[in-house]
Amino acid sequence: VPLGEFELIERYFSRGFPRRDDVVIGVGDDAAIVRVPSDAELVVAVDTLVSGVHFPEGLAPMHVGHRALAVNLSDMAAMGALPCWCTLALTLPAVEERWLEEFARGLRGLALRHSVALIGGDTTRGPLTISVQILGVVPVGAALRRSGARAGDLVFVSGTTGDAAAGLGLIQGTVSALDPEHAASLQQRFLLPAPRVELGLALRAIASAAIDVSDGLHADLGKMLQASGAGAQVHVDRLPISRALMESQGVARARRLALGGGDDYELCFTVPASRVRAAEHAAGIAACEICQIGTVEAEPGVRYLDGGRPVVAEMAGYDHFAR
Amino acid sequence: VPLGEFELIERYFSRGFPRRDDVVIGVGDDAAIVRVPSDAELVVAVDTLVSGVHFPEGLAPMHVGHRALAVNLSDMAAMGALPCWCTLALTLPAVEERWLEEFARGLRGLALRHSVALIGGDTTRGPLTISVQILGVVPVGAALRRSGARAGDLVFVSGTTGDAAAGLGLIQGTVSALDPEHAASLQQRFLLPAPRVELGLALRAIASAAIDVSDGLHADLGKMLQASGAGAQVHVDRLPISRALMESQGVARARRLALGGGDDYELCFTVPASRVRAAEHAAGIAACEICQIGTVEAEPGVRYLDGGRPVVAEMAGYDHFAR
Repeated sequence: VPLGEFELIERYFSRGFPRRDDVVIGVGDDAAIVRVPSDAELVVAVDTLVSGVHFPEGLAPMHVGHRALAVNLSDMAAMGALPCWCTLALTLPAVEERWLEEFARGLRGLALRHSVALIGGDTTRGPLTISVQILGVVPVGAALRRSGARAGDLVFVSGTTGDAAAGLGLIQGTVSALDPEHAASLQQRFLLPAPRVELGLALRAIASAAIDVSDGLHADLGKMLQASGAGAQVHVDRLPISRALMESQGVARARRLALGGGDDYELCFTVPASRVRAAEHAAGIAACEICQIGTVEAEPGVRYLDGGRPVVAEMAGYDHFAR
Repeated sequence: VPLGEFELIERYFSRGFPRRDDVVIGVGDDAAIVRVPSDAELVVAVDTLVSGVHFPEGLAPMHVGHRALAVNLSDMAAMGALPCWCTLALTLPAVEERWLEEFARGLRGLALRHSVALIGGDTTRGPLTISVQILGVVPVGAALRRSGARAGDLVFVSGTTGDAAAGLGLIQGTVSALDPEHAASLQQRFLLPAPRVELGLALRAIASAAIDVSDGLHADLGKMLQASGAGAQVHVDRLPISRALMESQGVARARRLALGGGDDYELCFTVPASRVRAAEHAAGIAACEICQIGTVEAEPGVRYLDGGRPVVAEMAGYDHFAR
């Protein structure tokens, strides 16, 4: 028996999701209604995942559900915003109850971790496409932007980069790793990205600019610098590379992945020299490693150094319509 | 040359759209930031259009763009909300500049008419799918809901219904009309739906319940009554049917389309008997015809009458996964 649209939302996406006092009307009317605190600005982002483009076809539905929210939480993190509510636009080829249960489980797990309420949605028939819209709040004027980096600021990145791209390669059979523990840890980084929401919140009033690393560090750092009208020098020998990535791929490939690989969902941000101690303290509060990889310069573009000497980095950022 | 994601948004969706003072950050950062008035609640809806499901493949991109926003504005209308901002998640098989220009033109035209700013978006590669998220505001506690209809309230519908379904049938060749003016007027109702935003605003504090007619009057009235825990009797001889529909289809088919056809984007609402004059005044302000078609009753379900006598209406509401 095919499920009706309304029943489908009710059955899979109503139960077990966080309840919030600021939700006046949730799923079930023509629109949802929420209360935004009067001293806050509303932060809005939307990200779409297409099967076979943003994740491999056949990816476990639990991981698809997790990912759909994670990529949006990462946008909130990059703004220093507190995520509060989300909506889900789900296009499905058919109603498979098992798939929906697992998808909802992945979405719900991450929603519960961040107390994000699912307040609305739309289910339609068509090729598998998932679009999540996230709404968050930030104190007036406190949001982190891409455009605030200034010459002399230091460039930081959280966690490690390149792992998710290696993990995807392992899943797709284009990358190999001898040690099964390395392989498992890299795949995990692709399958269950952990957006840096707490770090984003802690970096308010400290970072001068921020962006999340979704398309690769090279590409996203470039976007942040372009928005800031600045450039940077980056030390490739300071890139935060995990032991699993370094040992399984070797230094050259590990660096290529750390700069060019996507799907890390780390934060790349800049900090004025006078605020570096504060940034380190903020990272401690967020229980997150951060690594200083370079310095903002007035001259546009990114210049890579290895052992202090210029190197040519031929990296192309991920681009949805170019690859 | 393929366009990059960012450039694509910039080129087609930045220029010519309404600018609003309450947009702090628009397209171009990790998320948008807007200011919600402190005496307002935030109203949120999302609707997805899939090519070949919600509109015929090959529909002119201008009409697709118009439709993507119209269906969401209609949700705002049903809540009595003032639409303010929207985001666009656009999945495209390929970048066709001509298609994008025309799509943006359709979206922009309606956005300008309602002063809705496009504050963010995501473009991805995949089968044509368009998801618009709309954000609006309503004074605290003033939103219209589906759940407020009470026995004795009168049931109204705006404009005329069934035209859009006939128009779609004409486009697809399943419906015919001898008079080319009738055909043109019915097709127009499908191609360029005009959401009843002004009527929704005018009906605040007057209507006891409201829903927009997107899946057909029978189905949507049923949803509103179910949410209200009530039923209704409806006079099929009072249904607002346009001259074009009546003359081209005859009374029996016209009534079937008026009750069962979708895509009207009219409002169906209930009004306490004491507020009927106020509702008529509100409709006048919104420059919109409204028609009383029945009465809310305590007993669940919809009972149809013709000339005062019960008739069986075998109508099935549109359901995305059932058709």
